[in-house]
Amino acid sequence: MKLSDFQGQWDERADVVVVGYGIAGACAALEAKRAGGDVLVLERASGGGGASASSSGIFYLGGGTDVQKACGYEDDAEEMFKFLAASTECADKQAVRDFSLGSVAHFDWLESLGVPFERTSFKGKAVFLDTTECLFSTGNEKVWPYHLIARPAPRGHKVAGIGENAGAEAMKAILARCAEEGVPALYDCAVTELVQDDDGRVVGVLARQDGRQIAVRARKGVVLSTGGYNLNTEMVRRNVPLMSDTAVPLGIPSNDGAGIELGVAAGAATLAMDGIIATASIYPPGQLIKGILVNRNGERFVAEDSYHGRTASYVMEQPEQTAYLILDAEIFAYPEITSAQHALIDGWETVEEMEAGLGLPGGSLVNTLERYNADARAGEDSVFHKHADWLKPLDQGPFAAFDISFNKSIYLFMTLGGLKTNRHAQVIDRQGRVIPGLYAAGACSAHIPHSGKSYASGMSLGPGSFFGRVAGAHACAAE
Amino acid sequence: MKLSDFQGQWDERADVVVVGYGIAGACAALEAKRAGGDVLVLERASGGGGASASSSGIFYLGGGTDVQKACGYEDDAEEMFKFLAASTECADKQAVRDFSLGSVAHFDWLESLGVPFERTSFKGKAVFLDTTECLFSTGNEKVWPYHLIARPAPRGHKVAGIGENAGAEAMKAILARCAEEGVPALYDCAVTELVQDDDGRVVGVLARQDGRQIAVRARKGVVLSTGGYNLNTEMVRRNVPLMSDTAVPLGIPSNDGAGIELGVAAGAATLAMDGIIATASIYPPGQLIKGILVNRNGERFVAEDSYHGRTASYVMEQPEQTAYLILDAEIFAYPEITSAQHALIDGWETVEEMEAGLGLPGGSLVNTLERYNADARAGEDSVFHKHADWLKPLDQGPFAAFDISFNKSIYLFMTLGGLKTNRHAQVIDRQGRVIPGLYAAGACSAHIPHSGKSYASGMSLGPGSFFGRVAGAHACAAE
Repeated sequence: MKLSDFQGQWDERADVVVVGYGIAGACAALEAKRAGGDVLVLERASGGGGASASSSGIFYLGGGTDVQKACGYEDDAEEMFKFLAASTECADKQAVRDFSLGSVAHFDWLESLGVPFERTSFKGKAVFLDTTECLFSTGNEKVWPYHLIARPAPRGHKVAGIGENAGAEAMKAILARCAEEGVPALYDCAVTELVQDDDGRVVGVLARQDGRQIAVRARKGVVLSTGGYNLNTEMVRRNVPLMSDTAVPLGIPSNDGAGIELGVAAGAATLAMDGIIATASIYPPGQLIKGILVNRNGERFVAEDSYHGRTASYVMEQPEQTAYLILDAEIFAYPEITSAQHALIDGWETVEEMEAGLGLPGGSLVNTLERYNADARAGEDSVFHKHADWLKPLDQGPFAAFDISFNKSIYLFMTLGGLKTNRHAQVIDRQGRVIPGLYAAGACSAHIPHSGKSYASGMSLGPGSFFGRVAGAHACAAE
Repeated sequence: MKLSDFQGQWDERADVVVVGYGIAGACAALEAKRAGGDVLVLERASGGGGASASSSGIFYLGGGTDVQKACGYEDDAEEMFKFLAASTECADKQAVRDFSLGSVAHFDWLESLGVPFERTSFKGKAVFLDTTECLFSTGNEKVWPYHLIARPAPRGHKVAGIGENAGAEAMKAILARCAEEGVPALYDCAVTELVQDDDGRVVGVLARQDGRQIAVRARKGVVLSTGGYNLNTEMVRRNVPLMSDTAVPLGIPSNDGAGIELGVAAGAATLAMDGIIATASIYPPGQLIKGILVNRNGERFVAEDSYHGRTASYVMEQPEQTAYLILDAEIFAYPEITSAQHALIDGWETVEEMEAGLGLPGGSLVNTLERYNADARAGEDSVFHKHADWLKPLDQGPFAAFDISFNKSIYLFMTLGGLKTNRHAQVIDRQGRVIPGLYAAGACSAHIPHSGKSYASGMSLGPGSFFGRVAGAHACAAE
């Protein structure tokens, strides 16, 4: 609303008002506080943590972190930047560069807060780690053509917590530090409106707490850090309709896009709203990558050694979102992570029987396998450039197929689109101008990757925490 | 319409009916005829040629053509495939591979028809060639990161004709050969409907000629080769709304999407309908590439040595589609090809004055240039990786700026989207199945590049002629 229409009194005042207490909000608040700002966090839930606390706790960071060094991996910021610049859709290369160049120092900062990271690495193919091991490969760094552009290094840094919700260990540490350093927060407090002065500057927010409205003045800025929108059925239907049928949102109920809607009402532009990372991985175990994926025309369509989210993106582009994982007896195994998700269709003695059993066009799978096997024997996948490590002829019958079709398996998804921001985490309006006093970070702003083809695990917590800090510092420094 | 609803008699019969007599249609017809098929071309205009005849006559071909060899360039089909696989959005890698592997033979085939290609090359930066020179670089092969993925080679093969419509020389030769070999055509004949049997197979077409309806039976297949849709105002507004304001379609009036609509009415899927190549090049002369491009925030946004269509795509993503070409006195020149298109805004003695004169945020251009100049002195563009050949500090005042904003310059555009096809040029329906008896090639089918970011000059005539032949041969071979 306009400041001139605001009739009431300010109930609270702060330099920097942070909306949402997940990782981006917590980092923004702490950084603003440390810069001498008077900070107030408004959180809709009854405590901090957000979706970050129920995440798997992976931070995409690199450039030579202490963990990378301890585990014997060479990396530098330029290689990380080159990889991200080439593989992600983000057009703001300056922001990508800031993140890459600042990544080592940011890792140290997180660790200084007490976020636990082991000096250990996992060398296999995993989606989640059920152990406390830290470093593993979570993106397409080793996938063609990216390994030709930048020297690959594992950059997924997992917090030392057990299970699929290790993110809680990170949030516990960061929130404890926020409390220690005197960051105040109001809980059960949902922001309903941004207040803008005649110049469009955001000068405060209206919120509801315990059934009453409160008005909070923000002298220097408001940071939106409210998470994604994948639990908002209507926004999902409108922006990513395919996800609204059978895919399962990965998040918490408050991932309803509230911050995106607040920003848009204040004039903000959005970016990449059709972007999602969805997945139902074929690995682990890694040996399944030696199989091939075919569509209902019996044709391959992706390098099978792609990051699982990249593979899933290609599955969604296939006819009727249908795809099969084809294995021979030598490499057969049940997908571990997804044993409940991908159905074993059947086993067959010959390729011809498998082709018929899957209802594929006559000769299609036979041709595809002939060609693939010839390539595998020659040690080079001539069409999709799957790495030679994963090439072997599929010629040891019997053969088996798993159904990894989009509507036959459980695909989990997160949204990647949100408010458009610049490298300072300032929100941009629909004419390309900065909205003074408004910042966004984390999943309510557009991610660096705009699609599952370029996402890597850790690209939410990593840039979310980084640009949260950027927002808090920049807002605090504002006049 | 359904065959069962078709009450009339067939006025004409052929094995393969080709709709549209531009490059794709002519190549389809000739190939079908040579394969022993009974062919009939239906063309809406009063003669053959289509938009191909008014094009600049560039074929994107490579892999070691006789011209490439004669001019001393090393190329091979694998390098061409790797470049196209990495740089274009086409997910059908098999089709891209067929085109790459078949490219040398296709060049020989075109030449065997009498299409004239000199054994000459042009080594500068050009958009069109006003000479009869053949080979020049027309894509992003040398642009980061593509030069790391595949060995660059020039692949634009221009027909030996003078001026911007050298495509006429190609069409003259091919149409003459079609006539010699007895390809019959009906002119002033607009196809209005496809006729499908109960299984969905396309078995004929209805057309209007001289005010009367004629029905043409197609025993083996119908090839749609009717061109793009950029002259169809309504389709442009719906699919690429930005183009409907000030951009100028590059084509002929019959580029109205008629074939796309025929296909869709028969159940076809479309692909990349929001794709366009638009351009208002900053070069020639090449020295202008040593300038920088900034948006209204004073920030760079693209490697300035990109193919002109790639640069234009990024311009369109900037705030208010606004961009400026910044030059210093040492490299100042008027853009030659676009002298009527880009306005010189002004000259200024200092960067500070230029920043103020352009209305850029205080300090923004100064900062951008400081950083760029430091990079140029170090010989490496750390953010956008412009090739070192084009790097020099912009420090020789006075300074000048051209306005290359989308609504301030004349941007020419072509559409890249169309019917979805497979590697055999068969049209795919919305469930991912082949529509039996229906083929599409050329600009009424989706191009290999789906955006200006990945287009190269010659990616219309090259694949259009290649997959025209594929369609004609496959249709003729059908039972």
